Amino acid sequence: MTDNERLARGKKVREAVLGGAHVARTAKNRTPFNAEFQDFLMEYAWGSIWSRPGLDHKTRSMITIAMLVALGRADELKLHIRATANTGVSRDEVKEIMMHAAIYAGVPAAFGAFQLAAQIFAEMDKKAASS
Amino acid sequence: MTDNERLARGKKVREAVLGGAHVARTAKNRTPFNAEFQDFLMEYAWGSIWSRPGLDHKTRSMITIAMLVALGRADELKLHIRATANTGVSRDEVKEIMMHAAIYAGVPAAFGAFQLAAQIFAEMDKKAASS
Amino acid sequence: MTDNERLARGKKVREAVLGGAHVARTAKNRTPFNAEFQDFLMEYAWGSIWSRPGLDHKTRSMITIAMLVALGRADELKLHIRATANTGVSRDEVKEIMMHAAIYAGVPAAFGAFQLAAQIFAEMDKKAASS
Amino acid sequence: MTDNERLARGKKVREAVLGGAHVARTAKNRTPFNAEFQDFLMEYAWGSIWSRPGLDHKTRSMITIAMLVALGRADELKLHIRATANTGVSRDEVKEIMMHAAIYAGVPAAFGAFQLAAQIFAEMDKKAASS
Amino acid sequence: MTDNERLARGKKVREAVLGGAHVARTAKNRTPFNAEFQDFLMEYAWGSIWSRPGLDHKTRSMITIAMLVALGRADELKLHIRATANTGVSRDEVKEIMMHAAIYAGVPAAFGAFQLAAQIFAEMDKKAASS
Amino acid sequence: MTDNERLARGKKVREAVLGGAHVARTAKNRTPFNAEFQDFLMEYAWGSIWSRPGLDHKTRSMITIAMLVALGRADELKLHIRATANTGVSRDEVKEIMMHAAIYAGVPAAFGAFQLAAQIFAEMDKKAASS
Repeated sequence: MTDNERLARGKKVREAVLGGAHVARTAKNRTPFNAEFQDFLMEYAWGSIWSRPGLDHKTRSMITIAMLVALGRADELKLHIRATANTGVSRDEVKEIMMHAAIYAGVPAAFGAFQLAAQIFAEMDKKAASS
Repeated sequence: MTDNERLARGKKVREAVLGGAHVARTAKNRTPFNAEFQDFLMEYAWGSIWSRPGLDHKTRSMITIAMLVALGRADELKLHIRATANTGVSRDEVKEIMMHAAIYAGVPAAFGAFQLAAQIFAEMDKKAASS
Repeated sequence: MTDNERLARGKKVREAVLGGAHVARTAKNRTPFNAEFQDFLMEYAWGSIWSRPGLDHKTRSMITIAMLVALGRADELKLHIRATANTGVSRDEVKEIMMHAAIYAGVPAAFGAFQLAAQIFAEMDKKAASS
Repeated sequence: MTDNERLARGKKVREAVLGGAHVARTAKNRTPFNAEFQDFLMEYAWGSIWSRPGLDHKTRSMITIAMLVALGRADELKLHIRATANTGVSRDEVKEIMMHAAIYAGVPAAFGAFQLAAQIFAEMDKKAASS
Repeated sequence: MTDNERLARGKKVREAVLGGAHVARTAKNRTPFNAEFQDFLMEYAWGSIWSRPGLDHKTRSMITIAMLVALGRADELKLHIRATANTGVSRDEVKEIMMHAAIYAGVPAAFGAFQLAAQIFAEMDKKAASS
Repeated sequence: MTDNERLARGKKVREAVLGGAHVARTAKNRTPFNAEFQDFLMEYAWGSIWSRPGLDHKTRSMITIAMLVALGRADELKLHIRATANTGVSRDEVKEIMMHAAIYAGVPAAFGAFQLAAQIFAEMDKKAASS
């Protein structure tokens, strides 16, 4: 496989998971400073790992959310809560993952994630209502 | 629900997930120092969270492993790699979770987890062969 | 003890520690999405742990702040800095905990906590002045 | 205050907290590689922070243990569990700190700490019995 | 060396690294609550460690950025991205450090750092253009 | 660039950094369980990131060590302390990085790293003496 083939595969998987609106936003934000990092992510995160057949997108979505809650990475967590609309993780499942995370990563990790998810879901509902 | 009902429910779920051998070992290690903590875990981790119907045991097993890899909690990770024999997570799925974790928690987190899983799987194979 | 008894005990301890204003705010923010998590916290964090007699509220308040500084959990830290007004931890003691945390969790953890505490104390003084 | 005065003050406080056996062991392990780091710790951790009057040694001991549990720093945690014999933190209080940490840093952090404390207390009892 | 000598040395190194504007801002923000912490940082972080001759300021700047990215300490990271103008770390080198950090601390750590650096560099360019 | 070209480039860089003995050990430990992960690391960590010309190997070695100390990843840290023999980071520089890390990641992170480095350096000296 060449770099270009992997980039192409990564782009397709990423758009399926994060959605067209996110892809367009990232393309608009591309600068000389972040261009190589964007390409690296496309190949590494999306073309190599998310493209692997061993776990479906829904499962990858759930373990990604679990890890981001545990690590307290709020910005990336927002992306992946939005992505649940594409990966088929229901809001009830998001709730379960976060309650489960309270046990393994502590209550404050889950508490912050609940607030963040509520905010993202409200944005998503508002956008859906206005479209 | 009373404390005792919840303890009973927790015990059942915990034995289904961690296995009878682990349950016996923990009972043997019970001391005045850790007894209240053991009961607390039985009620909350097992009787309250793992007992919830919103995610099946296999999914809870996968997100638990993902979080423990991300947080670098090796001792607890060992328990939950062993538990995959009960929760139905295949070794190929464990591998996928750990490769996925390399993206979100960094290569060293995944590297340590691969070594630990290999060691646990070897122990499990040895025990199976000798029984 | 039944769930309801523990919920009742948790509510009382939580209000004593976090204060009536916080309790009212959380009640107002209760939604179907976070209701089960709120109840879980009430039983688990407040009804089971904070209710234990082995450490007084002031000591629990101090170790909670120390851990939240170390883990960098800013939102939860704000709650517990506000709670010092109820738990009897003085501002000088908050300062000492944060300087101590610089040694064990690193200077950036303490630095962020100092800024956050200054902001919360200013809000508290303003509210006190206007009431 | 000069460096030498602070070193002297740090030495005294450190010996009071960590005990003479630990001090002797560290002195024996002093090498050109770690000598400057040892001196830095003596001034910085012990001469500057632990020497401050704003919190007594028992309270500093408790918040140190809480942070080390949260951060998962096992080697340093061992030192500070041993130090409770000097700082006046009882074993029941160690237990309470660790159960409290389960809420804020997650169950695996507390679980590992309970095992470690049990092992240290057993060593301490054995040494006491043989002396 | 006395405290005052170390404070003086620390002040000089800190101003060389963080710049006069930052020093002025910190002086303005000095309060009874944070004064002792500011002095403590001046002595230890700056007077003891950054003043050591064993690594030059550029190298210290690079390892500081790498650690702050890994630990997710955003506020302190901003200071040290701004400081690259004084320490001689180029923007391309900042980019390389952050791409390197994606491997060791995970993609979300690097992703957040890229966004933060872009924002700081834009502020710096704007300030330079208006002066 | 094709996968195979990148693998080849990664192998070369990795051997230059980690040394032939490590490469041989990893090849011997290759199993169906870890083979894909090994290849993934070879391509991304080594073929994509360490191969970039923007930072030399010595600088990458230093920031890697700094991040591993901060994150407390002991196993990976051992590899990279050994690698300093190939990357040209002196033992005095390792000492400086670890003292610097005490400020940013806390004393316990640096303390553990000092002990680990001392042990690795002793092994290296012993091996050198016996060869």
